[in-house]
Amino acid sequence: MDKITTSIITIGDELLIGQTIDTNSAWIAQQLNAIGIWVHRRVAIGDIKEDILEALARESAVSDIVLVTGGLGPTADDITKPTLCEYFNTSLVQDEGALENVLHIFESRGLPILQRNLDQSMVPASATVIQNKRGTAPGMWFEKDGKIYVSMPGVPHEMQGIMEDYVLPQLAAHFDTPAVIHQTLVTSGMGESFIAERLVAFETKLPPHVKLAYLPSYSLLKLRLTSFGKDKVSVAAEISILFHELKELLADILVTDHDNTMGQVLGQLLREKGKTVATAESCTGGLIASWITAVPGSSAYFKGGAVTYSNDMKVKMLGVKEETLQAHGAVSEAVVREMVTGALSFLGSDYAIAVSGIMGPDGGTPEKPVGTVWVAVASKDRVNTIKYQLRYDRERNTQMTGVYAMNELRKLIQE
Amino acid sequence: MDKITTSIITIGDELLIGQTIDTNSAWIAQQLNAIGIWVHRRVAIGDIKEDILEALARESAVSDIVLVTGGLGPTADDITKPTLCEYFNTSLVQDEGALENVLHIFESRGLPILQRNLDQSMVPASATVIQNKRGTAPGMWFEKDGKIYVSMPGVPHEMQGIMEDYVLPQLAAHFDTPAVIHQTLVTSGMGESFIAERLVAFETKLPPHVKLAYLPSYSLLKLRLTSFGKDKVSVAAEISILFHELKELLADILVTDHDNTMGQVLGQLLREKGKTVATAESCTGGLIASWITAVPGSSAYFKGGAVTYSNDMKVKMLGVKEETLQAHGAVSEAVVREMVTGALSFLGSDYAIAVSGIMGPDGGTPEKPVGTVWVAVASKDRVNTIKYQLRYDRERNTQMTGVYAMNELRKLIQE
Repeated sequence: MDKITTSIITIGDELLIGQTIDTNSAWIAQQLNAIGIWVHRRVAIGDIKEDILEALARESAVSDIVLVTGGLGPTADDITKPTLCEYFNTSLVQDEGALENVLHIFESRGLPILQRNLDQSMVPASATVIQNKRGTAPGMWFEKDGKIYVSMPGVPHEMQGIMEDYVLPQLAAHFDTPAVIHQTLVTSGMGESFIAERLVAFETKLPPHVKLAYLPSYSLLKLRLTSFGKDKVSVAAEISILFHELKELLADILVTDHDNTMGQVLGQLLREKGKTVATAESCTGGLIASWITAVPGSSAYFKGGAVTYSNDMKVKMLGVKEETLQAHGAVSEAVVREMVTGALSFLGSDYAIAVSGIMGPDGGTPEKPVGTVWVAVASKDRVNTIKYQLRYDRERNTQMTGVYAMNELRKLIQE
Repeated sequence: MDKITTSIITIGDELLIGQTIDTNSAWIAQQLNAIGIWVHRRVAIGDIKEDILEALARESAVSDIVLVTGGLGPTADDITKPTLCEYFNTSLVQDEGALENVLHIFESRGLPILQRNLDQSMVPASATVIQNKRGTAPGMWFEKDGKIYVSMPGVPHEMQGIMEDYVLPQLAAHFDTPAVIHQTLVTSGMGESFIAERLVAFETKLPPHVKLAYLPSYSLLKLRLTSFGKDKVSVAAEISILFHELKELLADILVTDHDNTMGQVLGQLLREKGKTVATAESCTGGLIASWITAVPGSSAYFKGGAVTYSNDMKVKMLGVKEETLQAHGAVSEAVVREMVTGALSFLGSDYAIAVSGIMGPDGGTPEKPVGTVWVAVASKDRVNTIKYQLRYDRERNTQMTGVYAMNELRKLIQE
């Protein structure tokens, strides 16, 4: 069975000079995969007419669908629309629906309207216009020589609205798409090559339409099994058996058998047990709390957090003893132990996480170099502490500390 | 003057199914720009031999440099090395330096070594090997028909080490690169099209080698001026005058005249004034504290933060009155006012930020729908409060609240 393939073209100098990280492509790919459409290639180019024309021609030659984002704003560097007119040999006309939308947005915000805003309702005559409920630039759907092209704004939530409301349902209706199923699990505590060694026999016997991918992410490793075929039920049945086998093979290092964040994993465990958690963060500066609360409904199990960057805050907010700080220093087993028990009692939770470390680039000493981190996790009757020596930059050290600490709490809850 | 151009090829199915967001490309582009090399195109492809071969041929036809990341791991889905051998018509040989590196890494971690790890020291015979100090897969430098190709692992910090230690200095030495200077400022409180209208005359008179780009990011808008030419001093002189003029035109909405995060902006202001800040976060769940502490050296001005997701934590950690919570609800002007003054007094800082809101998707009521947010910022003798009605999803609402609240504190400090 032939795959239905898509190329994604992202337009904008900001993507080429590195000022913007492309998150649209990942989102689009996830949505397309869910309806059985494959992303064959992604191309990022600048706001240059020749490059846009070439990319349109080239990508439509290899893919069934060409999705274009960016270059539709009201400013002079946005040249996608005239370039589309040239490519499709058409010219700009005013779209009444798009004009009404622009007028409505400006009226509702009480803003005066400029010619360049009105111009956003001009569209290539051969396009099917897709109204943008979240902004002024409409989406545009073209068909040419059996290929489908869609141009959308680069602003993520506007693009997402246009995809969800129109593009995804239309593509699903237009193509006889295959069934694609991904199953992902997350492991911790074993390197990629050791896991690969353990899975040699499993990988060898996988049928050609099933793929296993290794996706490292900080201290965690995701393994993703993908299968596709004509019939969704048989694809689902087959991958279910294989995924179960994979989980059994990795049971000792399994964090979750879903593609979940550590915040989601902890949230589910706490919900199941009807327990609460609190955080006491020094070096992670609130990151762990923000990851826990990024999950909708986390107010059900998150009591609160103390970000105690300074010593006096450790004393004041968590009841850490001055003597302990003086005798051992802020980055020590004794201090994270008092921080975690302080969090349990002052914040009144069933479980708590505490971290204290030196993230860099400054602040290290010969005894406690940059990257030294102490983590404590606790329940009412147990405290586990662990020391890490991280070797990366400030951002990475901070993120790894967050993941490690949350994983330690997961283990404690599951004990 | 001809630009020196680069194509970036990222290899890996994870980039095409949307499980990994490509941050490498943005980092690489920033580094190349700093030495006057331009990214012409970025292409993401899967672990498929034919696609890799085609991308190598095609990108080397249009760019001077082809940088390839990914597909060098020890597992079966990594096929970049044999494909490079086919492309460069060579075969794999063992590299002694890379072998020593692999052995050293495994010895220092006390791990047994597997054949697939040893295989990472096999490299195409025609490559110049670039040792990887942060992992087992070496980088590889090729030259063919006047073009330069570099293959690197996709793990960000490994790729970054190889770029910084070897690739960037070698490219700078190899090419007669032009001078490129970017100057960026950040604005708040005015839409893209209104700014564009104000800048019509300024944009019209820009010489062709100077570009102005609009880069929206949540409630902020970045404007980036880019210039390039043969001589760095004259490029710098010219852009300095234009950038000064741009700043004058936008003085009333200017947040910063650097490409800085809000955490960096606040940090610089607090350092200059020798003042401290504390945070009291409900709906942002620690995100503001984590943004402030993401800045190295922030311990000099960040006292601490309270993440008070629940009502009882607002009372306990910040001294919010039970009566106020009952009379007005947690998401109210009265409560954020008590939160912010509580943060000032309990955490002992010169300034404080407090936020309380409903981020969604659940928790809204007819009077206080999802997206209702109250922000308070305070100094010792002043409290400013402001209400927002946000319209997006949980993640975006949370991030916007963080940016808005920090920007309100910036304004208060600068008053």
